[in-house]
Amino acid sequence: MYYLGVDLGGTNIKAALVTESGEIVKEASIPTNLPRTGEEICDDIAALCGQLAQGERVVGIGIGCPGTVDHGVVLYSNNLDWHDFAMADYLKAKTGMQVYIGNDANVAALGEALAGCAKGAESAVIVTLGTGVGGGVVLGGRLLTGYTGAAAEPGHTVILDTPDAPLCTCGRRGCFESFASATALIRMTKEARAAHPESLLNTLALTKNAVTGRTAFDAATKGDAAAKEVVDRYTRYLAVGVANLINIFFPEVIGLSGGVANQGENLLAPLRAAVEPMVFGNAFAKKHTRITTCTLGYRAGVIGAALLAKQEE
Amino acid sequence: MYYLGVDLGGTNIKAALVTESGEIVKEASIPTNLPRTGEEICDDIAALCGQLAQGERVVGIGIGCPGTVDHGVVLYSNNLDWHDFAMADYLKAKTGMQVYIGNDANVAALGEALAGCAKGAESAVIVTLGTGVGGGVVLGGRLLTGYTGAAAEPGHTVILDTPDAPLCTCGRRGCFESFASATALIRMTKEARAAHPESLLNTLALTKNAVTGRTAFDAATKGDAAAKEVVDRYTRYLAVGVANLINIFFPEVIGLSGGVANQGENLLAPLRAAVEPMVFGNAFAKKHTRITTCTLGYRAGVIGAALLAKQEE
Repeated sequence: MYYLGVDLGGTNIKAALVTESGEIVKEASIPTNLPRTGEEICDDIAALCGQLAQGERVVGIGIGCPGTVDHGVVLYSNNLDWHDFAMADYLKAKTGMQVYIGNDANVAALGEALAGCAKGAESAVIVTLGTGVGGGVVLGGRLLTGYTGAAAEPGHTVILDTPDAPLCTCGRRGCFESFASATALIRMTKEARAAHPESLLNTLALTKNAVTGRTAFDAATKGDAAAKEVVDRYTRYLAVGVANLINIFFPEVIGLSGGVANQGENLLAPLRAAVEPMVFGNAFAKKHTRITTCTLGYRAGVIGAALLAKQEE
Repeated sequence: MYYLGVDLGGTNIKAALVTESGEIVKEASIPTNLPRTGEEICDDIAALCGQLAQGERVVGIGIGCPGTVDHGVVLYSNNLDWHDFAMADYLKAKTGMQVYIGNDANVAALGEALAGCAKGAESAVIVTLGTGVGGGVVLGGRLLTGYTGAAAEPGHTVILDTPDAPLCTCGRRGCFESFASATALIRMTKEARAAHPESLLNTLALTKNAVTGRTAFDAATKGDAAAKEVVDRYTRYLAVGVANLINIFFPEVIGLSGGVANQGENLLAPLRAAVEPMVFGNAFAKKHTRITTCTLGYRAGVIGAALLAKQEE
């Protein structure tokens, strides 16, 4: 008995045939070819699912979709430029299968929580450190979606409420995202590179545009002082945001994903040390949140989507 | 069929006989008489419950207890000076009834969510603006307790991560509590009173120690500029913390309790206006979180405790 998981992105549509325990049996990918209507894209998704399902017993389709999704309707997707598209109904009519839809970041978090870094844990908060800071919260094996369907947006909680805090993509200042995204790390690295002509940052990135989310970590590992300052500052802000999430959810696992999380222990060890004194009541706690990195990579999306279908059916 | 709800405070132990739908049938209160051991206090609780239960069919006892509680054990209570007290086991042996224990703020939040300001809502976040900022999160009718039992502590999430932010009672700087508690409001009012000798704040509070959580609101209502500044600043920070909670949970209801919440619409109207543009994706949302004040007052504790027993049995 299998489930189909679909990760609908702005560039590619990935799909996989997945077992009940979250293992991928087959996978495939096609280009999204935006701009297109919801119906056009769903026709492609239906065809892709048809190929993967051929000859197999498939129970349902789960989909991770960018934007705000509520009860099978894509209320708004900035990436896809869709408004109020009744995606589940359309795809159900097209495929004859039950279709369940969640926000893409939430669905990937469900994958990591049930089959990846937090497998077996009673609760997990997954934080993605990418272009923005996304996330998902899984409690007792189920996604937190909220009354509006829009939960969880930890990236848009403010951690520095000052008029001169960095501007976030959402229009506010001082959001967690404006400090902890890869974009923020690159911004801080570029600033340090310009301010410190003697720094290795200028050697590792010969031009401003060559700076990546790895530049500061690489230079810091080689002992560069300016780079170390960037990494320390980034880690500090990341710690504040992570500790805020712990002090609200006290989850069993915090899992970090996205490009910056590839630093592994380089990031995790100082992060854990910074978070520890920020956890409320930590001195008397018998149990502690485990801070780790995600393990499924891009496959979290399709696996999570399939497991969404499994848990919703 | 009834449940007993107990609200164990540092000064009084309140108890009530409660119906399945959260209505109080009988209530009683005795002094806590600290310092005493857990066993001594539980003996009193058992006697109090015995009186209330006399002649009635009681299914179980629920207790709201200050501190961190996990699976019936009070891990640590600063107010009661208890460590690792197996309270549920002790009381069960003493009364012959099932006993369920939760953190007092969480249990009061459960009362408001199920029988008070958020009755019938699918989710609620209750925020108490008192000496500190406490809270509780109720999702699908159940309390969020977290892996450690310590959830939820929204008061100890940082909203202003600067080295000169106000010091919180937890030892960190810039916590939501250090801006949004009644204590913080009183601190800001005292500062404004000293800085503005011409302000009504000096008439409404003849001495510094006469300042209460109402002083700034009262003076602002009469048009005092310095007081209005305090109220605006307080409301702004409260809005940031409330919006952070919305952007994480997107709950159906945010309920405010505690002394400051008694301001009612005086507080709620400007708060709602300040929060609205802070909610992520608000422009495209079909559903919105309702921000309101709690309705059960001190009875939230005993009602929530009884309903905890009901839902755990």
